[in-house]
Amino acid sequence: MKITVKKFGGTSVGSMDKIRKVAEMIAEERDKGENVVVVLSAMSGDTNKLVSMAHEIADIPDEREFDVLVSTGEQITIALLAICLNGMGYKAKSYTASQVRIVTDSAYSRARIKSIDSENIKASLSDGNIVVVAGFQGVDESGNTTTLGRGGSDTSAVAIAAALEADICEIFTDVEGVYTTDPGICEKARKLDKISYDEMLEMASLGAKVLQTRSVEFAKKYNVPVHVRSTFSTNPGTMVIKEDKDMEKVAVSGIAYNKDEAKITITKVPDHPGVAANIFRPISNANINVDMIIQNISEDGYTNMTFTVPKNDYKKAFELLENTCKELGAGGVTGDTDISKVSVIGVGMKSHSGVASTVFDSLANEGVNILMISTSEIKISVVIDGKYTELAVRVLHNAFNLDKAEIVEEKS
Amino acid sequence: MKITVKKFGGTSVGSMDKIRKVAEMIAEERDKGENVVVVLSAMSGDTNKLVSMAHEIADIPDEREFDVLVSTGEQITIALLAICLNGMGYKAKSYTASQVRIVTDSAYSRARIKSIDSENIKASLSDGNIVVVAGFQGVDESGNTTTLGRGGSDTSAVAIAAALEADICEIFTDVEGVYTTDPGICEKARKLDKISYDEMLEMASLGAKVLQTRSVEFAKKYNVPVHVRSTFSTNPGTMVIKEDKDMEKVAVSGIAYNKDEAKITITKVPDHPGVAANIFRPISNANINVDMIIQNISEDGYTNMTFTVPKNDYKKAFELLENTCKELGAGGVTGDTDISKVSVIGVGMKSHSGVASTVFDSLANEGVNILMISTSEIKISVVIDGKYTELAVRVLHNAFNLDKAEIVEEKS
Repeated sequence: MKITVKKFGGTSVGSMDKIRKVAEMIAEERDKGENVVVVLSAMSGDTNKLVSMAHEIADIPDEREFDVLVSTGEQITIALLAICLNGMGYKAKSYTASQVRIVTDSAYSRARIKSIDSENIKASLSDGNIVVVAGFQGVDESGNTTTLGRGGSDTSAVAIAAALEADICEIFTDVEGVYTTDPGICEKARKLDKISYDEMLEMASLGAKVLQTRSVEFAKKYNVPVHVRSTFSTNPGTMVIKEDKDMEKVAVSGIAYNKDEAKITITKVPDHPGVAANIFRPISNANINVDMIIQNISEDGYTNMTFTVPKNDYKKAFELLENTCKELGAGGVTGDTDISKVSVIGVGMKSHSGVASTVFDSLANEGVNILMISTSEIKISVVIDGKYTELAVRVLHNAFNLDKAEIVEEKS
Repeated sequence: MKITVKKFGGTSVGSMDKIRKVAEMIAEERDKGENVVVVLSAMSGDTNKLVSMAHEIADIPDEREFDVLVSTGEQITIALLAICLNGMGYKAKSYTASQVRIVTDSAYSRARIKSIDSENIKASLSDGNIVVVAGFQGVDESGNTTTLGRGGSDTSAVAIAAALEADICEIFTDVEGVYTTDPGICEKARKLDKISYDEMLEMASLGAKVLQTRSVEFAKKYNVPVHVRSTFSTNPGTMVIKEDKDMEKVAVSGIAYNKDEAKITITKVPDHPGVAANIFRPISNANINVDMIIQNISEDGYTNMTFTVPKNDYKKAFELLENTCKELGAGGVTGDTDISKVSVIGVGMKSHSGVASTVFDSLANEGVNILMISTSEIKISVVIDGKYTELAVRVLHNAFNLDKAEIVEEKS
């Protein structure tokens, strides 16, 4: 069965007129005889409204109930789209996550999809329906409602595409595709025709907000071709696909930044085996994700440990560390919330040397001090003072000629 | 297990402050050690907003999808109340109809409850939770979302109380209880301390909007004591209970009216066996409820047939009858949408004579012409010109001294 999965984000279904426009796009596809599965987000703004309500009625909203509340937005859009399509004379049926068994773990607000019962969807398609599924939501094995975190509808869509072995998963959004960097802070940013799963994974997890990281993991794992494109134009967008030869010819594909992290340092830690575990266990138990970790070379049996955490968890992490600090007899805890992480990404980095030194040189020339460095096979991230973010992005974009779809010559 | 079911209507949960107030009332009850099950409507106005959206996006919204849409309102209130209670330090869990298996038939927008799985609720109560259930919604046997019609949350509450064998079902609303008639059009209307299921059933089905008819049927069938009372005061309201001796001492307990019906007459119908079936089959097939039916005595082999239908279905019924009229070779179809039905109700009617003549005399004295009459053991309904509704209600309220909690002397 040839199947297309189309996901529309909140701005694409943000008003009755926009929903009508989406319905027309889907109808056009249906007229071509396609089997269409649509995955929708809530109307833009609606989820924020629900979140505000939760915080208005309790300081720390109960996690289980919070998900029951915020998952209503998608139920509204799927019903409206299905009503619209039926009104236009098309057969369409909406399904909540519970109805198509999008089963997740029980981590409320950031649940991970474990399985999807593709049979319900396939049966509905075989009945001639356009299938409209609520994104963002799931149901755990006990039947509790869960949600997948911000951008979770992307993951719903890709996971459904994977479960159905769909031919393509189209992510319709309010931008034209994936850019070399954020066009909002670098006007030379250029839309990419294609990007590899691994690069997209780094872009997403390092701050480019166009796709949820989990969705790219799913796409990579199940080899789902993802097309990121604009709801409001017919231009081709960016294909997120398996790495190919062309991609390797370019050293750097894009530049991402993230201002949502904070830096914490615990100083003068008595250095002995197991000390890192002692520091990070309480933080991990509190479900706080630690990102970059740097441990200095030990001097006189003492070391410093610096790492980054999400800004939202900074206060909690800081308090936990003050306890740890006492227990370990360490020097003290310091922190900084005004930092940003800037990353250059490219699968070509594997075969191109000199990328790191270009990064360091370009930033040094502009007087930008590097606070932390972290690298992987296909990315280099630096943590810098928050105020230099935009400058650093533009400098690096220039340094790697990202405004031009240029193929860097192989160094021999 | 001693259980109290408390249902709060839309005006009782119409704002964050009101939800907080409801949470405090429930907490107070919980502190007394009660097992509390709460059933909620959507915030007042929210369901209307959703209905408008549906009609904005399609002229005739698909029935299945309409229910998916309008059932979101209750999911919002149950989550908010549970968040509020948890924030106050109480254990509370919300459940949708699908989660507690409120199974209905598949008649969208007016589904009837077939069964409720009380085990989930009881298990949650045993875990020490305040259980918060979404009213108005159900799920059919294939897992489709259904809704129970306007006022359906009353039925959800009573059906849950019946399934749990609860000690009482309290219906919290924006009025003080059940009145002898609508206080909005008769200032002498008096709150009743108690009313029998049968009387309440007539009151509800004849237009008093305080309880959904189906909820009273459930209460009667399973003998659930229902207490209709105000959210905004601690005054006792009206107990809806099994008929008792006291009730029979009063000839008439209340007066209801209904302006939502229209009258249709088919004239000069060739009178032969089966003709009524020919007339009503197409109407019944179109799911239109016929209320009062009057057939005149046949003259020269012809008869007239008059009946009432909901005003919403008038146009459809009229068109169907024009066809039937041709097929049967009848004279023609006429109708009137500006009518109203006024009913006097009382279990005491069974033992008190003269009620009917008091009704006819009082109306005649005011020059109100009676267009149709229908009676049961405990009620007399008359259809009159719509403009006389308020006058008729006041006249009958006076005629039966309903402003006084007076016991009519038995006639010997």
